[in-house]
This record gives sequence, structure tokens and C-alpha cells, in this order.
Amino acid sequence: MPDPVLLVLDTAPSPRLGRLTGRVDVRHADASSLAGLLPAADVLLVWDAASDAVRAAWPGPGRRPGWVHTAGVRVDRVLCPELAASDTVLTNARGVFERPVAEYVAGLVLAFAKDLPGAPELRGRARHREVQQVAGARAVVVGAGPVGREITRLLHGLGVRVALVGRTARRTIHGAADLDRLAARADWVIAAVPLTDATRGMFDRRFFGLLQPSARFISVGPVACVVRSGLQDALERRWFAGAALDVSEGEPPGPDGPSRDVPGLLLSPYPSGATVGWRDRLGEQFVALYEQWARGEPLPNVVDKERGYVPSADLPGGAGPDPGTGPRVNGSAAPPG
Amino acid sequence: MPDPVLLVLDTAPSPRLGRLTGRVDVRHADASSLAGLLPAADVLLVWDAASDAVRAAWPGPGRRPGWVHTAGVRVDRVLCPELAASDTVLTNARGVFERPVAEYVAGLVLAFAKDLPGAPELRGRARHREVQQVAGARAVVVGAGPVGREITRLLHGLGVRVALVGRTARRTIHGAADLDRLAARADWVIAAVPLTDATRGMFDRRFFGLLQPSARFISVGPVACVVRSGLQDALERRWFAGAALDVSEGEPPGPDGPSRDVPGLLLSPYPSGATVGWRDRLGEQFVALYEQWARGEPLPNVVDKERGYVPSADLPGGAGPDPGTGPRVNGSAAPPG
Repeated sequence: MPDPVLLVLDTAPSPRLGRLTGRVDVRHADASSLAGLLPAADVLLVWDAASDAVRAAWPGPGRRPGWVHTAGVRVDRVLCPELAASDTVLTNARGVFERPVAEYVAGLVLAFAKDLPGAPELRGRARHREVQQVAGARAVVVGAGPVGREITRLLHGLGVRVALVGRTARRTIHGAADLDRLAARADWVIAAVPLTDATRGMFDRRFFGLLQPSARFISVGPVACVVRSGLQDALERRWFAGAALDVSEGEPPGPDGPSRDVPGLLLSPYPSGATVGWRDRLGEQFVALYEQWARGEPLPNVVDKERGYVPSADLPGGAGPDPGTGPRVNGSAAPPG
Repeated sequence: MPDPVLLVLDTAPSPRLGRLTGRVDVRHADASSLAGLLPAADVLLVWDAASDAVRAAWPGPGRRPGWVHTAGVRVDRVLCPELAASDTVLTNARGVFERPVAEYVAGLVLAFAKDLPGAPELRGRARHREVQQVAGARAVVVGAGPVGREITRLLHGLGVRVALVGRTARRTIHGAADLDRLAARADWVIAAVPLTDATRGMFDRRFFGLLQPSARFISVGPVACVVRSGLQDALERRWFAGAALDVSEGEPPGPDGPSRDVPGLLLSPYPSGATVGWRDRLGEQFVALYEQWARGEPLPNVVDKERGYVPSADLPGGAGPDPGTGPRVNGSAAPPG
């Protein structure tokens, strides 16, 4: 019996795939060769998670991979209607990026509060302006998936009073219906939603108009959830105090990306999830999933292709705050929409 | 019986002292009038904590205040030998600044790790450099007083493995003899020591030579604990990766202050303890202490005038990490020296 065919869509090889050598027929594709190679593949690894080549190349009925894994959190770039309607299993890299992204958010909250971005410009400025205390401030985290939960946990550890908003209310998670009310009194609004039809452009002029003048908005999800013109307008009119957008791969700061000349807008210098060793962790994760797949075991991190994200019904308890010290976020969890 | 005389050394009146109206004979002094007014005072409030006027004006034997309170953490600017030898009680503002300073340190750690200071300069830079994860990194916090303990608590909450170093080893606090060994393997070295004869200049060229090339050094204590030329040299030679100095009042960024043109050196834009409302909190604290003094009760926050700081033997347990979740720092605690 021939080895299974693993087709890898990549721009650079993953160092960890070598562990599969001798057991797997590894082939490599780029955007132009993908369509021709896909029908012969058993497994497709979308190593270049910023690519949207799969949408264009996904084959019609007939032979196609039984499993697609994307080495990233976002699945909107991969999930075309034909893939959604097929019986192909789609998994993502849940578990690799949550902590780095949450650290980035905590860092931004503290950096804004302490005016660290202003530090290099100290010369000649008045020195006795007061900075803010983070403990006791109110935050609303929009998106109750693993990233939103990890953000909630870290901010809670800093003494921030965090309200976590999911799609529907359950236990200590607020439903989407509470979002406007919570946002209107928040010092910090953190957007951690996946890109779906329901979340595209959900942070718009109307939403920004709800915020307090002292509030700040931080998005760590796809920029397409944010209406750029609305954000820019609101910042220029000082409707609220500042914003930060995580610049993820495939969202260049060019004409298609967020503008960098907006007052009060901070862009991350690098994708916040890309901490040292992230490619190794992604490679190790895929190898582990592959071992499970080869043994015929059910895979974790399976995307609900209707909803467009991995449901959090069985998220491990460790994703929530420590018991007894913070809001409890157990139970089924899903982003707004 | 006349009201007690409260002499306030200030540049701006404290809004909260009004609560003592009718019970206290409040008088105000500046540096030039202090010596003349001191002998008649029962209590001296050093509201302008950056002033060193008390050292020059402290009266010789004879009539002098029985209690001096400084509205800051540092006592080195007040504590002259004559005051140390007297039976005057000296108290400080312990409890007001610990959390803001610890938040500033946590913010710097995250901002350095995520390269947030580099964010505004994104244009034209390579975007795929990896940032660092904070969880799992090693930190050594030098100074086991309330500020060092609060820093330890917050960093521990971020998943940092923190070693706390005091003057002498006890329970989970390392002694000063361990400092070199711990610093040599630390990713983060946090200096939170008071200025005493033993700590003046303790962070010098020899010390910076111990650090890893990837390490960063953050000082939140008096700049005089750091040998500027040694710091500058070490940063210019890239002995370690970066440093931050908290710019406290009375340490202007002029010729006497830390240089701002050193590569990798970040200066706080404002004193890190000065969060919104800090003057109110200082005023409220003094009024509460005054009530205790007026009732003849023993005062908290009494400075050990031999050692030059408030001993932490009876620090409330809340100053340490949560029980069971972090290193325990109970018991007597004092900074190195």
C-alpha cells in the first residue's frame, strides 16, 4: 500500500515535518500548482496560513483530501462553500497562539495606561502628567473562544474587571445582546472574534460611537471585523482615546491594510502570535495530529464548517481563570454572531 | 490647649488636608523658610517628597517635631544623621505606590518582549521578526520590600518564573549572596531597592557584565543605585539587550539625570507611581495617619532609621503572591544591603 500523500502548501518548508519521513509521501505546492496536485492528496497542510489559494483551487466533486489542516487560527481564508459542503475534515492550530496573543493584549493595555509609546518622545514634554492604574479598570472581551478566554485570564490577573461576551449568554459569559451596554462603560474593549459573515465589519462607526472618551479599543482578530473608515473617523474625532490593531500575516500595512497615519492608532510591529519558536510549535502540533489521523483516531481542533470556527464546548478548564479567583468561563463558548 | 502645629513642606497644597481644619494649626514652609518654622512644629509633613530641604534645615538638639511623614517611598532625601539619631518618628507612604510601580514593570516587560517601542517605527521594517513570549521566562527581582513583592506577584501572574532577592535568605526569599548567580541566568532583572549606603551604585559595570546578552534590566528605585556610566557602557557594548529607568521626581533628564541617548535605554515618561489620583491617595493616607497620631496610637509605616527603610517583618500577607499559586514571600523581608 503506498504511503499517504501529504500535500503541503508552503512558502518555506516546516522543519518538523521531517519526522514523518519514510511514512508519508510529502509533496509541495504553491498557489499556481495547488489545483493540479490537490486531487491526488490524502491530506492538505496549509502551512502558509495567510494564503487564500485553497479557496480558488478546491476541487469539485470527486477525489479530494479527506483532511485539511491550516497552520493558523483563522479559517476564513480556507473555508470556501465547496469545502464547507464536503465531508473533508478541517482543523486549525488552536492552542499555539492563545498565550502570545493574550500577552500582547496585556502589554498593550499596560503600555497605553503607562504611556509607554510616549516614552521616546519625553524630551521637552511636561513630565507630571499622571498615568493610569490598570487594576480596577473595566474591560469587555468580545469573543469567548480560546483567545478571548486567555485574554480574560491574563487581564483578570492584573486586577482588571473583565466581562467576556460570547454569541449567546451562558453561565458567566454575556451574550451578544449585552455588548453595547458593556462597551459603553468599558475602559478597554478587546475584539477577539473570528471572521464570519456575522462578525465582518461588526466594529463600525455605530459601535465606536458607544465608547467612552477615555476608552481604548484593541483588535487581535482579522482586520476585516473592523470598519477602517469608521475607526479612523472615530479616532480623528476623539470619540475614544486610542486603538491598536494586530497586524497579522496577509494584512500588509499598504493600501489594503489599516492606515498607519491615524492619531491614536498603534499597529503591532509583528503578528502578535508569532513568538520565538512558533513555527516549531506549529510543526510539532501538525505531526501530533498526523499521528492521530494515521491511527484513525478522531482529531481535535475540528472546525464547525457552518459556523466558521472551532466550537469551544469542550475547551479544557485550564483556558479559564483560576477557579475562585475570577469570572468562570466554563461551558460551551462561541464568539458573537 | 492650642491645636498641634502641622508644618507642611510643599509646592502645592494637598486637597485632602482640609479634613483636619479646626483641629490642627496648619502652616506651610518652603525650602528657605523651613529651618525657621521647624522648631515650633509638632508634626512635619514632607509633601514635596522630592525635596531634600529637610536634611539642611533639621534643627539641632532642642525643640523639634516628634513625627515626620514623607509623602513618598524614598526616605534617603529626608534622613540626615541628626534625624536618625533623634527620637523623632519617621514614616513614609508605603501602600500607595506599590501597585502602580508593579504595573509599570509588568508593562515594560511585555512591551520589551512584544517590541511595542518599535511599533511606531514599523514603516519599512521587516515584519517577520519574532517577538518573545513572557510566560516561562526567568526574572530576578532585587529588593524584597513591598514594591519588590508586588512586582513578583504581578510577574508571577503572567507566568514568569520569579526569584525574589532580599538582604538575607529566608523561606522563599533568596539572600544577596545568590544575586550574581540568579542574575546571570535571568531574562529580566528588576531593581527595586531603596537607596542606602549599601545599595548606592550596586548596579555597576561588574554587575551588568554578569547578564545574558538577551537580558533586560529595569530599575524602579532611585537612579543613584545604578552607575550611569556602567549602564551606558554595557548597553553600548551590547552586553545585554535593553534597560529602563523609572524617572522619579527630582531626577530630571538633564545633566544630573540618566542620559536619554543611550541605545536600548527606555525612560519612563512620568514617575511610574504617579497614577491618576495619587495626590488624593497620599493626602488620605496622611489624614488617616494623623488621626492615629492624635489618638496616641502607634503609627504604621515607621522607618527603621538605621537601615533606611520600613522593615517588612509585619507586611500584610496580601503583599505576597496568592497562596498556592506562586512563590511564598511571607516572613521578614528587607532589601539587599
